[in-house]
Amino acid sequence: MSPVGIPRNARNSVVHPSENDTSNMFGAKVNRPHETHENNGKIPLGQYIFERLLSCGTKTVFGVPGDFNLTLLEHMYSPKVIAGKLRWIGTCNELNAAYAADGYSRYTNKIGCLITTFGVGELSALNGVAGAFAENVKVLHIVGVSPSSFRTNAARFHHKVHHLIPALSDPNFNPPNHQVYFEMIRDRVSCSSVFLDNIEEACDQIDKVINDIYQSSRPGYIFVPADFPDMLVPTLNLDHRALISLTSAMSSLTVSQEDVSACVGLILQCLYKSETPAVIADVLCDRYDLNGMLNNFVEKYGLWSFSSAMGRSILNESTPYFRGCYNGAESAPNVISNIAKCDFIMHVGAVKNEMNTGHYSLEFKQNACVVEMHPEYIHISKPGSTHKFTGFFMTKVLERLLIELDTSKLQLSYPSCEKNEPEQEEMPQPGQSITQLFLQQQFPKIINPGDVFIVETGSFQFGVRDYVFPPNLKFVSQAFYLSIGMALPCALGVGLGMRDYPYHHISTLQESDLTAFDPKLILCLGDGAAQMTVQELTSFLRYKVPSEIFVWNNGGYTVERAIKGPTRPYNDIMNWNWTKLLYVLGDKDETDTCGTTLDNVSDLAKYFENFRDPHKKVIRLAEVVLSVLDFPEQLKIMAAACQH
Amino acid sequence: MSPVGIPRNARNSVVHPSENDTSNMFGAKVNRPHETHENNGKIPLGQYIFERLLSCGTKTVFGVPGDFNLTLLEHMYSPKVIAGKLRWIGTCNELNAAYAADGYSRYTNKIGCLITTFGVGELSALNGVAGAFAENVKVLHIVGVSPSSFRTNAARFHHKVHHLIPALSDPNFNPPNHQVYFEMIRDRVSCSSVFLDNIEEACDQIDKVINDIYQSSRPGYIFVPADFPDMLVPTLNLDHRALISLTSAMSSLTVSQEDVSACVGLILQCLYKSETPAVIADVLCDRYDLNGMLNNFVEKYGLWSFSSAMGRSILNESTPYFRGCYNGAESAPNVISNIAKCDFIMHVGAVKNEMNTGHYSLEFKQNACVVEMHPEYIHISKPGSTHKFTGFFMTKVLERLLIELDTSKLQLSYPSCEKNEPEQEEMPQPGQSITQLFLQQQFPKIINPGDVFIVETGSFQFGVRDYVFPPNLKFVSQAFYLSIGMALPCALGVGLGMRDYPYHHISTLQESDLTAFDPKLILCLGDGAAQMTVQELTSFLRYKVPSEIFVWNNGGYTVERAIKGPTRPYNDIMNWNWTKLLYVLGDKDETDTCGTTLDNVSDLAKYFENFRDPHKKVIRLAEVVLSVLDFPEQLKIMAAACQH
Ligand SMILES: Cc1ncc(C[n+]2csc(CCOP(=O)(O)OP(=O)(O)O)c2C)c(N)n1
Ligand SMILES: Cc1ncc(C[n+]2csc(CCOP(=O)(O)OP(=O)(O)O)c2C)c(N)n1
Repeated sequence: MSPVGIPRNARNSVVHPSENDTSNMFGAKVNRPHETHENNGKIPLGQYIFERLLSCGTKTVFGVPGDFNLTLLEHMYSPKVIAGKLRWIGTCNELNAAYAADGYSRYTNKIGCLITTFGVGELSALNGVAGAFAENVKVLHIVGVSPSSFRTNAARFHHKVHHLIPALSDPNFNPPNHQVYFEMIRDRVSCSSVFLDNIEEACDQIDKVINDIYQSSRPGYIFVPADFPDMLVPTLNLDHRALISLTSAMSSLTVSQEDVSACVGLILQCLYKSETPAVIADVLCDRYDLNGMLNNFVEKYGLWSFSSAMGRSILNESTPYFRGCYNGAESAPNVISNIAKCDFIMHVGAVKNEMNTGHYSLEFKQNACVVEMHPEYIHISKPGSTHKFTGFFMTKVLERLLIELDTSKLQLSYPSCEKNEPEQEEMPQPGQSITQLFLQQQFPKIINPGDVFIVETGSFQFGVRDYVFPPNLKFVSQAFYLSIGMALPCALGVGLGMRDYPYHHISTLQESDLTAFDPKLILCLGDGAAQMTVQELTSFLRYKVPSEIFVWNNGGYTVERAIKGPTRPYNDIMNWNWTKLLYVLGDKDETDTCGTTLDNVSDLAKYFENFRDPHKKVIRLAEVVLSVLDFPEQLKIMAAACQH
Repeated sequence: MSPVGIPRNARNSVVHPSENDTSNMFGAKVNRPHETHENNGKIPLGQYIFERLLSCGTKTVFGVPGDFNLTLLEHMYSPKVIAGKLRWIGTCNELNAAYAADGYSRYTNKIGCLITTFGVGELSALNGVAGAFAENVKVLHIVGVSPSSFRTNAARFHHKVHHLIPALSDPNFNPPNHQVYFEMIRDRVSCSSVFLDNIEEACDQIDKVINDIYQSSRPGYIFVPADFPDMLVPTLNLDHRALISLTSAMSSLTVSQEDVSACVGLILQCLYKSETPAVIADVLCDRYDLNGMLNNFVEKYGLWSFSSAMGRSILNESTPYFRGCYNGAESAPNVISNIAKCDFIMHVGAVKNEMNTGHYSLEFKQNACVVEMHPEYIHISKPGSTHKFTGFFMTKVLERLLIELDTSKLQLSYPSCEKNEPEQEEMPQPGQSITQLFLQQQFPKIINPGDVFIVETGSFQFGVRDYVFPPNLKFVSQAFYLSIGMALPCALGVGLGMRDYPYHHISTLQESDLTAFDPKLILCLGDGAAQMTVQELTSFLRYKVPSEIFVWNNGGYTVERAIKGPTRPYNDIMNWNWTKLLYVLGDKDETDTCGTTLDNVSDLAKYFENFRDPHKKVIRLAEVVLSVLDFPEQLKIMAAACQH
């Protein structure tokens, strides 16, 4: 199989990967890395990197080539890497590569990797990596940088290399700092980073960054000088640690069994006293692969459960135990009154920030026992005392709770729960305009179990809070960092993750049950967000990523209009011919895609009705016309509360 | 006049700026900044910022709104700012805003300003600012950040605000660093930056950054907390310094007249001894507004002159004195032999980096006297001695040379110069494919005096080295930082600069002569580069920026193919329907634009023939089909020399 998608581009010379393309055409001396392949148990570093990625479960790599990473990219064509089925996904620009790598990791929970070139590429990608950092996504950013000789000889020769910013003072004289970009990101948007400068240490350093990414579920960086990929390194590490996974990374952390026992004991003690215990599933459950366990826990014991705003779709929302999305004072009224009845709260994988706590308004019943489970510690506060257990044992504790909890000691006595009074369904006249309210009532109906639902930051996102998701739905949304333009390339990454790990998000006991699912990738985004990164749609086409896309055309930045300047031109954008976009981006004969404008309720209803009907299109894009100042109710509440 | 372009978008509610749109629609308490307008000689800081920008000559501001800059943007609608005709140009994303601001400054030599929002916006723009830093462009990046109260109360309340990356260690407990992004850029991609945190000092701090940008011709940053724009500040600074310009900023630097005299004396002494003096015009001439003076100098005394690679179009290339573009060993052969004949070199506004020195291969005649003029010092090396005069007097020295040089003491005795043997013009068969060679021969013919010629990094750029430009041409190219995707949004900024400062680049003595010019903005870019930032074409349409665009469709990254992986898929991209792009990006009835595919020499020749014919289109886009592995000769030489 080809490790890369083959473009449909008729004019391109379509090429199949082979080992015979390493030369520079104009006679420059070029190492032929594969000649040295497995030379005395050694392999080129470039090959090491790709084999290591494959050994971590990363089968797709995103990025853009550039002068300083070509030597690395060449090693994708080493026979072992080809055999491992590594796939290169060239994106239109580097920011999109970062967003896609983020999406790949959000879906697979493996490392999402992007490769860029010195300065121009890496800085372009930075905002995407920062978003992954803010939301605990496992992204590895590999940057091809200037050859190591340029640093040792810096003052003497070749010192001001292209893509590298000059020194601030007297730049004609002072050599630039080849590590300046590394210094910018180190300890800021990455949990672990290394600028390779000693080939002897390179393999260990690379493995460390990867291990760290799994452990702290945040991005890492590896800066690879352009002369390093061809240098030989031992295969030792690959032989000794054939696989780096979340499990292997976490299990390398020492954990005190005594602390675990004490913590479990205390939690059980509180739980046995509780009449109305509740579990809140937060985003780090997902990042540390606890979703299945937590669902089992909730269902086995019949506990009330909530999700956080960032933790949507971790829990099966269609069980009788699910009580909604709790986001402090910004939750639906019934959710607030339900949580207020709980005398025990187990908040698992908690992340606290203004978006995930309703602007710091979480409020529990007086004297409730609150157990906060974080990756590196567990905090318990109960009437009269608080306890902090430090250690990486969130998973261990949950595992033991699942086994040790003694049903006979539970004294559950839940009151009847408050239901959300479903709004009277609007019954619009045929031909009437589509409203956010109508969408909110109709959209949930097209989402099926097993779908992957990706929602961009924007007005529509607010309404999704009150959807009840079907089981086995995977919901993806950048709910805290909120960088618009993220969702579209992110969806590309998700879609490729779905290809590498089919049905990964579906928890069912029987392999054979999977065939009952027809997972659709559904992407919803506003027109303003879409315009930020729109070119990446071409990659859905290039790599044939099946998707259902909805673009909300409401003439600009409606979320911002709700905060300030409702009719200001700075919140306006251009109106595009959305339905012809995929045609322009490469579907010359419109066989693989179709675009439809839906500008009234009847058309929308019909589109929804037929939504699951089989069709031959790889990508469908529906432009849904909304009015400029139509805000979901939930957005109005946020805007009213907005202090800045 | 409207300070913003009004979108053609029929569905948008077209709005005219007024002062009546400051409220938040949902009842949040919102200051009404204009109520406090000119309150005891005080104005809101937001208004101060925009009045200050106008006072610097910046009439257009680029950017994207966001939660943390809306309070600032509102002050664009203060009556004084409206009266000053400040124009807001909303770009599709923030990277494009940075590139556009860079283009605006490259054209106007005023400050190009972009406004973004905390984190998500500012990091997206970073690569554009880094490029401006690397190439000495006057860009001001204003970032709307979290309100100042969020910092003082950080540990207590609201500390993890959206868009802000959390602390690296124990982020649920430790407050984030609200200045983290500021710390990333400070002293790295900016010559001057301030994070406002004391309203009393804000005006001075803002003025200092602007003054610094002019003085060192590099980007600066101002971080404005979201609560600051509505706070009142005195108008004092505006009254005392009604205008900040390059001249005013430079003249505030103290200069020793003695040093100037000594330096001028020494230069003249060497010059009078020289038989074959030469001037090299480098990029900082342009940034410090010396182009006119340098041309006068060369023409007045009839000196041989060269441009550097980054300094193209500073000199009038059609004078009999112009000897070509000198880029060390990578120059055309006749240029190398001409410069080798010169016994005196005055290299003005010199910038030394690998791209501008032919990879550090500048080589002058033995015993030649070399005068290097830098903004902050002048270095003279002559046989037996070297001299360094430190001080900001590049302009002063040139001014005095122009006056004091005594023609009677000049002993010019130039040999005959080598001409570039013009390649035999290829006479292709009609219908034959277009080649880079054919383009190189034909393209110069459509460029007229007074045009603005913007060339993206890519294979075509290499051929441009050997064009001889017509007089009064403005050439714009990111020749050192080489970030692809830059040219298209840059051209938007240039086009708006041309609107704010018509004929700015044309040096003619008579105002009335200007009408003889019909300056066209000509943008040339590769398909790969175009795909990086393509959405910004919509803004050419939205703001009606007349332009002639050529997209080289050669199926991917040809420059990279020359270096490595000529047929590797990582160098492929999708093939788009380029001619329908502008239709999709908003020209619904195709009245303002047209797209044409040129895939053979006859069609290209016809297009060129009619190129200057009057037409009604605002934007024309020609897709020129080239073959995948067609490299200009100059690129082959570079690739052969390429060591990495
Ligand atoms: C990169 C980035 N730039 C700016 C913002 C500020 N911002 C947040 S939402 C928004 C508007 C989104 O508009 P659109 O996608 O059309 O959705 P709508 O709210 O109109 O439904 C903007 C500009 C941001 N979050 N991220
Ligand atoms: C932001 C950025 N990413 C990557 C690169 C590396 N790079 C330099 S030139 C180039 C290819 C340009 O291709 P195209 O615009 O199609 O021009 P061509 O060389 O094919 O004529 C690339 C990817 C870069 N310079 N900047």
